[in-house]
Amino acid sequence: MEKIILDCDPGHDDAIAILLAAGNPHIDLLGITTVAGNHTIEKVTRNALSVCAAAGIRIPVARGAECPLVTPQMVGEYIHGDSGLDGPILLPATYELDPRHAVDFIVETVMTHEPKTVSLVPVGPFTNIALAVRTEPRIVERVKKVVVMGGAYTRGNVTPGAEFNIYVDPEAAEAVFRADWDVTMVGLDLTHQALATDELQERVRAIGGQISDFVLAVWDFVGSTYQKQYGFDVPPVHDACCVAALIDPDLITTALADVHVELHGEWTKGTTVVNFRDIPGMNHTNGVALRQTDFRTSVALSLDWPKFADLVVDAIERLSAPVVNR
Amino acid sequence: MEKIILDCDPGHDDAIAILLAAGNPHIDLLGITTVAGNHTIEKVTRNALSVCAAAGIRIPVARGAECPLVTPQMVGEYIHGDSGLDGPILLPATYELDPRHAVDFIVETVMTHEPKTVSLVPVGPFTNIALAVRTEPRIVERVKKVVVMGGAYTRGNVTPGAEFNIYVDPEAAEAVFRADWDVTMVGLDLTHQALATDELQERVRAIGGQISDFVLAVWDFVGSTYQKQYGFDVPPVHDACCVAALIDPDLITTALADVHVELHGEWTKGTTVVNFRDIPGMNHTNGVALRQTDFRTSVALSLDWPKFADLVVDAIERLSAPVVNR
Amino acid sequence: MEKIILDCDPGHDDAIAILLAAGNPHIDLLGITTVAGNHTIEKVTRNALSVCAAAGIRIPVARGAECPLVTPQMVGEYIHGDSGLDGPILLPATYELDPRHAVDFIVETVMTHEPKTVSLVPVGPFTNIALAVRTEPRIVERVKKVVVMGGAYTRGNVTPGAEFNIYVDPEAAEAVFRADWDVTMVGLDLTHQALATDELQERVRAIGGQISDFVLAVWDFVGSTYQKQYGFDVPPVHDACCVAALIDPDLITTALADVHVELHGEWTKGTTVVNFRDIPGMNHTNGVALRQTDFRTSVALSLDWPKFADLVVDAIERLSAPVVNR
Amino acid sequence: MEKIILDCDPGHDDAIAILLAAGNPHIDLLGITTVAGNHTIEKVTRNALSVCAAAGIRIPVARGAECPLVTPQMVGEYIHGDSGLDGPILLPATYELDPRHAVDFIVETVMTHEPKTVSLVPVGPFTNIALAVRTEPRIVERVKKVVVMGGAYTRGNVTPGAEFNIYVDPEAAEAVFRADWDVTMVGLDLTHQALATDELQERVRAIGGQISDFVLAVWDFVGSTYQKQYGFDVPPVHDACCVAALIDPDLITTALADVHVELHGEWTKGTTVVNFRDIPGMNHTNGVALRQTDFRTSVALSLDWPKFADLVVDAIERLSAPVVNR
Repeated sequence: MEKIILDCDPGHDDAIAILLAAGNPHIDLLGITTVAGNHTIEKVTRNALSVCAAAGIRIPVARGAECPLVTPQMVGEYIHGDSGLDGPILLPATYELDPRHAVDFIVETVMTHEPKTVSLVPVGPFTNIALAVRTEPRIVERVKKVVVMGGAYTRGNVTPGAEFNIYVDPEAAEAVFRADWDVTMVGLDLTHQALATDELQERVRAIGGQISDFVLAVWDFVGSTYQKQYGFDVPPVHDACCVAALIDPDLITTALADVHVELHGEWTKGTTVVNFRDIPGMNHTNGVALRQTDFRTSVALSLDWPKFADLVVDAIERLSAPVVNR
Repeated sequence: MEKIILDCDPGHDDAIAILLAAGNPHIDLLGITTVAGNHTIEKVTRNALSVCAAAGIRIPVARGAECPLVTPQMVGEYIHGDSGLDGPILLPATYELDPRHAVDFIVETVMTHEPKTVSLVPVGPFTNIALAVRTEPRIVERVKKVVVMGGAYTRGNVTPGAEFNIYVDPEAAEAVFRADWDVTMVGLDLTHQALATDELQERVRAIGGQISDFVLAVWDFVGSTYQKQYGFDVPPVHDACCVAALIDPDLITTALADVHVELHGEWTKGTTVVNFRDIPGMNHTNGVALRQTDFRTSVALSLDWPKFADLVVDAIERLSAPVVNR
Repeated sequence: MEKIILDCDPGHDDAIAILLAAGNPHIDLLGITTVAGNHTIEKVTRNALSVCAAAGIRIPVARGAECPLVTPQMVGEYIHGDSGLDGPILLPATYELDPRHAVDFIVETVMTHEPKTVSLVPVGPFTNIALAVRTEPRIVERVKKVVVMGGAYTRGNVTPGAEFNIYVDPEAAEAVFRADWDVTMVGLDLTHQALATDELQERVRAIGGQISDFVLAVWDFVGSTYQKQYGFDVPPVHDACCVAALIDPDLITTALADVHVELHGEWTKGTTVVNFRDIPGMNHTNGVALRQTDFRTSVALSLDWPKFADLVVDAIERLSAPVVNR
Repeated sequence: MEKIILDCDPGHDDAIAILLAAGNPHIDLLGITTVAGNHTIEKVTRNALSVCAAAGIRIPVARGAECPLVTPQMVGEYIHGDSGLDGPILLPATYELDPRHAVDFIVETVMTHEPKTVSLVPVGPFTNIALAVRTEPRIVERVKKVVVMGGAYTRGNVTPGAEFNIYVDPEAAEAVFRADWDVTMVGLDLTHQALATDELQERVRAIGGQISDFVLAVWDFVGSTYQKQYGFDVPPVHDACCVAALIDPDLITTALADVHVELHGEWTKGTTVVNFRDIPGMNHTNGVALRQTDFRTSVALSLDWPKFADLVVDAIERLSAPVVNR
């Protein structure tokens, strides 16, 4: 069992990540923390509770940062709609928020569990994680793994080089990549392989029921915005990849790299600058230009899509089963 | 016939570009201008004359800028060796340099030919071209096309985002991309397709003679540094692609894009930020992040390698033929 | 009575600020929070308790951030010595630290007092204040005033443009200046007027006793480092100016300005860019260069030194008096 | 006799600089080169010829760069009016432009005179000088001195940190400061001491005649824009200070400094970062922040105003005298 805190901004693919984390028997979802990103903190927090309501689960939800560390706020309404989770019916919350701030929730959860037993899974802007590290630096050595959705090593989705989660709070991202812990970067190069294909959608439809309907409505809406904004035929399920990678490490291949977030460019702010150690043509330390490098971030390269699809279907099936069977 | 000035820093692939330009019947090579880049201005100018000596050609060579506009100089010795063209025997020059500075050569050549008849082909850092534009801005509307080797829209070869020619003089590159003329960017995404494969090398070997030997020695040396530095099996022939694109426009596919050079990043200086208008997933104007865009640079996407190889072989054959046959 | 939280990194002039805040009858010092700056968080926290021990006061001390938000840490050992407060004898603490983190102390203190009754006085890097604002944004409208020691509008003291407190954590400083509250910037232009002249030192010497000895030892040490590093004849008492400005608003003149912290320069990182609204030659909105401005920061211009010296002497006298007289 | 080339963008204070250079017997004004700055290249070139017409002098005028090296163009119309020299009557040119480009004029003049006999006096943006250095680097060791009007070490006049000439073409300025020659920076700190006071204006009025009228009209117009834009009571005569410093080195005091131009800041672009070697409080090498420094630029500190005023009056008197007396 992997104990995780899912730090998210639901958000369509965040919703699937919640379902996968809650529905998979290898994940112990200790809590959901929210962060402004795909939409405002009010909306994404409401959405997190709505996802839990739709799935019939009762995971602690703690509300977090309402704006980035330094950079002015932007939201992803052009993808996620006015509610931040347009498409499915958003049920009212069935329980109360955790009284703690997300940062306190993260710090207390990590510090009260055994060392190296809790992993963090930030799939929105990394603001909460950066704040937690700065107010309680001891979490760095205590956390087991940090598996982030963010960045890209070829092309971004907000600017030519920058991915949304990093672009929104680049200073927080840099703080997370610089901290001395075990980070896996699951970026667009990987998540654009995790497509909700027609085949996957058919399998989910075959399950039937409220959760199946919810998931299909999620993909229907975000499929249309991805078609319009990016020309994608079917939508990617970014955030769920991080959970999947913790369920089954064989699901993604990775390579060690030195990752820096560009904080100061005119056209490149928020770009993840990824220097690989062992990949032909992608290591730049033999030349004269780069400063010393530190290859300690695992960067996701390729996805085993069939296994990924199986995990998603399995989680939805388990959550949809009568409670007696779970 | 395309009249061109080849602005280069030989340089192994520059040498092939000279041969292709001199040997192809559709190109009228008005002159070769040199610029510090792969090595110092002294060495690359000497090398340009040596290539002409090896090929038995007599093209005017004008020496140009010895350092970048603003950025401190760096050279590509780690690829091109101590001479800037290690490998082949470097013959002494068989004629004198043009007395003019490369900038004056460019300006005078463009201004004394009919408008829209001369194209510029910068395949080293763009310093000379930027200086020419700043001292005589009227060349901008008078030049036919500018086909540059430089940049990348996915990964660089000096840093994760920056290609050598742009990295060495990013301010000059920005000046060239901003000028209001017809620019084609032939970047690494394209030139890494233009490999001197074993098949191509065999065809060149079959020609025999001094030029064939020269070309094979070029590829032998740069093949070994590309293997060592980048893990390539066979070396790319970057610069020749620009000449090939002018010989046969069908040789490369392109797409319109807005290209900016990052001048101010900590980790991204010299990165070409390429925003495509019509390519799914590669246009970023629907989001909120990018400022107004101006899609007027043609960016090379894919190469017809068989045709490219044919052109290279053909040019070497023609140059190797007894003079009476040319 | 002005209720304040003094957020500091003692530090020599911080020590005087503590004494002035504790000794002046118009100030209600609710707590001292510490932040890494002049030295590590361990040392400056120890020093804060030592100052309180020397002065015989019992103010809650809460330990805060151990490093800046994003920028790598640097300390001011070259001014403040190996202990961060070299010179005086550093007595052991006479009481325990507050159990809360400085950020929690600030947030809880502000949120549990009436709105607009508590002022913040950050005289070290602004890390704690930025973290407090980001984890509990409601403090912004609840705080009365923020009177910071930091910045300069002419010359810095770490680089030509940057002052130490801002340079150490420029991202935190930018967050503080951008928040929508009443900020007074007491920068080097003002604090270099607050000199511990021979006259002031004589008056303190005349008081006699443990606190007088402590203060003189502080000025003796920092006087020597200021002489060596900056060529000053006598040391400035930077941080105490912020407390003095809250005791008597007539003590400093101010002017409204738009203040931004440069986060992205090669040579100017941490520079406070101060655009004044009403000062001849110092307003730059009529030209074409600056973006929209928002003149809402009060920037300190000139100090009434005699009144300032009187306040310092008075506070030391009161703290030195037998307890029955306080 | 100091042989100089005055590189300028007239411009009101440029006009006075021309008169001082032409009228002073210690200056041999080899030529006037123009550069876009206070207004477009067309207007400032026309204005240079008009000043010569008004003064009855016949100095070669060569037209130069029409825009900055890299940065988009801006002009100083808000100070200099629609013509770039509003106020006086602008007489038509009495002779033709030199046929050469300013860059060629500079290079040829420097290279055809004895080494170390020609000084450059750039008092507009440094574009021409940077282009000359890049196309003919040998001028660097051949030039005697470079006395620039530009920059500031406390406050700018376009943004809080940046002075106009540097702000307009910061990359060119950096190239000039980095070249290995003898540079004196006459910045705003000095030129704001060179005021056209009522006393000076009275002395000029007492001379009478066409040139006196011209100068008074210049000061009348620019006095009003300086009053409006900056709140100055009387206008500064920036550019003439550089000429004055070459006439009489005792006229200004200077100190050695390391000067860098900020090229990459968000708020500080074009700021001159001036680190002094020997001035208390203004040397930042003892701290930890600055990289290695190279104190080789002489930065002007204070002006002997009475001597300056005498030089200006004397030059106008000489130019106004019947030709037989010159």
